[in-house]
Amino acid sequence: MDVPTWSHRHLLDVDGLSRDELDTVMTLAERMSRARAMRKPLDLLHGRQLTTLFYEASTRTRVSFEVAARALGAEVVTVGVSFSSVTKGESLVDTVRTLEALGTDVLVLRHSRSGAPYLAARHATGSVVNAGDGWHAHPTQALLDLFTLRMRLPGGSLVGRRIVIVGDLLRSRVARSNVWTLTAAGARVVLCAPRALLGGFEAWAAALPADRHLHVTDDLAEALEGADAVMALRIQRERDAGSALPSVAEYVAGFGLSTARLQAAKPEVLVMHPGPVNEGVEVTTEVASAAGSLILEQVANGVPVRMAVLALLAGRS
Amino acid sequence: MDVPTWSHRHLLDVDGLSRDELDTVMTLAERMSRARAMRKPLDLLHGRQLTTLFYEASTRTRVSFEVAARALGAEVVTVGVSFSSVTKGESLVDTVRTLEALGTDVLVLRHSRSGAPYLAARHATGSVVNAGDGWHAHPTQALLDLFTLRMRLPGGSLVGRRIVIVGDLLRSRVARSNVWTLTAAGARVVLCAPRALLGGFEAWAAALPADRHLHVTDDLAEALEGADAVMALRIQRERDAGSALPSVAEYVAGFGLSTARLQAAKPEVLVMHPGPVNEGVEVTTEVASAAGSLILEQVANGVPVRMAVLALLAGRS
Amino acid sequence: MDVPTWSHRHLLDVDGLSRDELDTVMTLAERMSRARAMRKPLDLLHGRQLTTLFYEASTRTRVSFEVAARALGAEVVTVGVSFSSVTKGESLVDTVRTLEALGTDVLVLRHSRSGAPYLAARHATGSVVNAGDGWHAHPTQALLDLFTLRMRLPGGSLVGRRIVIVGDLLRSRVARSNVWTLTAAGARVVLCAPRALLGGFEAWAAALPADRHLHVTDDLAEALEGADAVMALRIQRERDAGSALPSVAEYVAGFGLSTARLQAAKPEVLVMHPGPVNEGVEVTTEVASAAGSLILEQVANGVPVRMAVLALLAGRS
Repeated sequence: MDVPTWSHRHLLDVDGLSRDELDTVMTLAERMSRARAMRKPLDLLHGRQLTTLFYEASTRTRVSFEVAARALGAEVVTVGVSFSSVTKGESLVDTVRTLEALGTDVLVLRHSRSGAPYLAARHATGSVVNAGDGWHAHPTQALLDLFTLRMRLPGGSLVGRRIVIVGDLLRSRVARSNVWTLTAAGARVVLCAPRALLGGFEAWAAALPADRHLHVTDDLAEALEGADAVMALRIQRERDAGSALPSVAEYVAGFGLSTARLQAAKPEVLVMHPGPVNEGVEVTTEVASAAGSLILEQVANGVPVRMAVLALLAGRS
Repeated sequence: MDVPTWSHRHLLDVDGLSRDELDTVMTLAERMSRARAMRKPLDLLHGRQLTTLFYEASTRTRVSFEVAARALGAEVVTVGVSFSSVTKGESLVDTVRTLEALGTDVLVLRHSRSGAPYLAARHATGSVVNAGDGWHAHPTQALLDLFTLRMRLPGGSLVGRRIVIVGDLLRSRVARSNVWTLTAAGARVVLCAPRALLGGFEAWAAALPADRHLHVTDDLAEALEGADAVMALRIQRERDAGSALPSVAEYVAGFGLSTARLQAAKPEVLVMHPGPVNEGVEVTTEVASAAGSLILEQVANGVPVRMAVLALLAGRS
Repeated sequence: MDVPTWSHRHLLDVDGLSRDELDTVMTLAERMSRARAMRKPLDLLHGRQLTTLFYEASTRTRVSFEVAARALGAEVVTVGVSFSSVTKGESLVDTVRTLEALGTDVLVLRHSRSGAPYLAARHATGSVVNAGDGWHAHPTQALLDLFTLRMRLPGGSLVGRRIVIVGDLLRSRVARSNVWTLTAAGARVVLCAPRALLGGFEAWAAALPADRHLHVTDDLAEALEGADAVMALRIQRERDAGSALPSVAEYVAGFGLSTARLQAAKPEVLVMHPGPVNEGVEVTTEVASAAGSLILEQVANGVPVRMAVLALLAGRS
């Protein structure tokens, strides 16, 4: 398989990707998806070693990267917190250098501290892929969300589409990365959350160039009006200390997605969620399992999208 | 290698397997065992993805499935509780769907709740293999026990053989699954435990059809009389809250297997244990290491038996 | 690749290796290093199964063995404490037998109890490699340290070289194994630690044959005088109960390696550390990142050295 040229060594966030680069990822991911469906063997990462270094527990993201890497012929090394010298207090920088000395070419890092992958990248000689850092960014999630929307929106374009992101925006790396890719793809993005969480996003919306459309509201009914797609964010109960969020019951009352509420959106509205879903909280079970729900497609698309990212990084000029 | 036709999509318990089906598994497992001994490469699961999803710690069962799957050319994904989003409270059903979206064709599930694999199977599009669920069932353990007995009983048949299962029956998924396969194979099965644990088993014995032989007793001497094989169950100290079992000392005095006690059995009596053994409790060290002890053969046979199961599920019509 | 004959079934410590055998390992490790640099595929362990059984957390040693084994074509099984039946209290001997019954040919064992790998080896039918046992030994670390010094000392020989090992000698398996290999290679080894930790080492030095050079001191300035290389040991804070060590501040004052202190050594002095480094404690950040620091080379050399060890064990006569 022929891989287009790529100029970035790392994937730390999506804010630095141009529209052309996003298109490159999307087009390559489509080809990866087809190759995978045809069980066509690929060896673009043959002889390369990819290590997943996860300081936070994860099933879907870790497995997705590992499946993607193996599908390209890479050797995969798994380092989880419970296995690692992290318990000995080894620093992130030392761990990065150690793993590279052991042969790692691509390091996939998840960390609870925002910015940790940037620190890792500064000391790495190979590539670093951010698999989620604190509240900051989750670039491959944003790319797979973009891919999923392109696949499912009629015409395959996001231009002018109204896409709502609703939930605990403040602590959401998924939302932050999606704002970049969705607005870059021409969508009209609406962020919706309790007012107390919206401050920074209003400033962000105001600062964007005129060709990027970002709107902020604390009124879900207004947000959903005519929406083409709605992305519900996970309530991170496990990161809940000192939260500005209301109680779960209040959250559901104000921001939970139900079939009734989705009446305000377009009839064919698409529903997304980065998972794991708290059914009955962010979305009702009915919404999660409705025809327009793309939740499992997002998971499935994660593999070819990550294959595309890994192939681009491995073949960079 | 030619694999016989098979009509089941899952392996959740052994109660639904006919005698012919048990024979099919046994015969294929013998062929797998020979192929493995000859280090003959097999690719019956090439291009397939098997995931072990273990909500309870295990070495032997998890590794056995993974070795079996790789021996058939499958890609193996390991998801253990310490690694997974289980800590985020993701539901079993969501985890199953997520893993399938990531490419899993066969899900091998261990769970502390009886029935969990049935729930998983109801929502799975691929195959689910029960690797042990609570007190309920451990089908591949029963199959490898059957295989081990066929290999070691003179004539290779269990018909009319007296096989004793002794220990904490109430909480034993191994015992429950073994009752089905051993009686189906024509053995005369004797269950032996403290009286307080026997109630349900007496009812079960009474309800069996006339061609299945199940006897229940709290007298170990009586149980062992003329036995061809004895299977000791593990005392599950880690699941011991509110146990009806006596103290360890009382248990050893009443139900521990010693050389002296085994005098009542046939001279060539075989001794089995699903492991891990608490030596000096369920069996003495002398018994565990005697010539008739099949404990390590059971472990070794687990690989070809699981290879057979996986090959049948993968090639089902 | 042609592998020299080898007569040992296990690698439990380095004290039993002759100078010729050390040379054999070193020469083969050099060839492995070149083959790896040329990404030359090797299949010396094809069809073999290697299991890492780690009762203590580790990143570098576990991953190093796994990368080495896969580079030789072996199947790798990972058993960590958090995954295993260790939590069920299964004995080490039973675990060894179980893993061998599951197909393991080479067992790589790390254990907090000194001597555990000897126990494992006594009951194993295949090979056991000690990946660190308590305070006792870490043979592959000593071999990779020897390899690293041969690569970097002018002329490639340790004969007559002054090599200082400084730190918590009492609890250091790395120091104990290095004393054997470094003195066997002809180096003049100087052990340096607080006086309270030195007793056993003075007796050891006195008992060595005349052609082995081991000197013991509690004076770092004296130890470093004219040194060719200095190996700092890790302060094992996590094993610190009842330590005879002074406080961290006192330790740094007396035994921490700084650029100023290293003035006493040769100008081109080499600095080593088995990792993970507590920067600012055993060595300053300046020393750790200076040109003479071999810390990452040690990690990188671990892979070809372990490849050599595994190839020798697998091909033993």
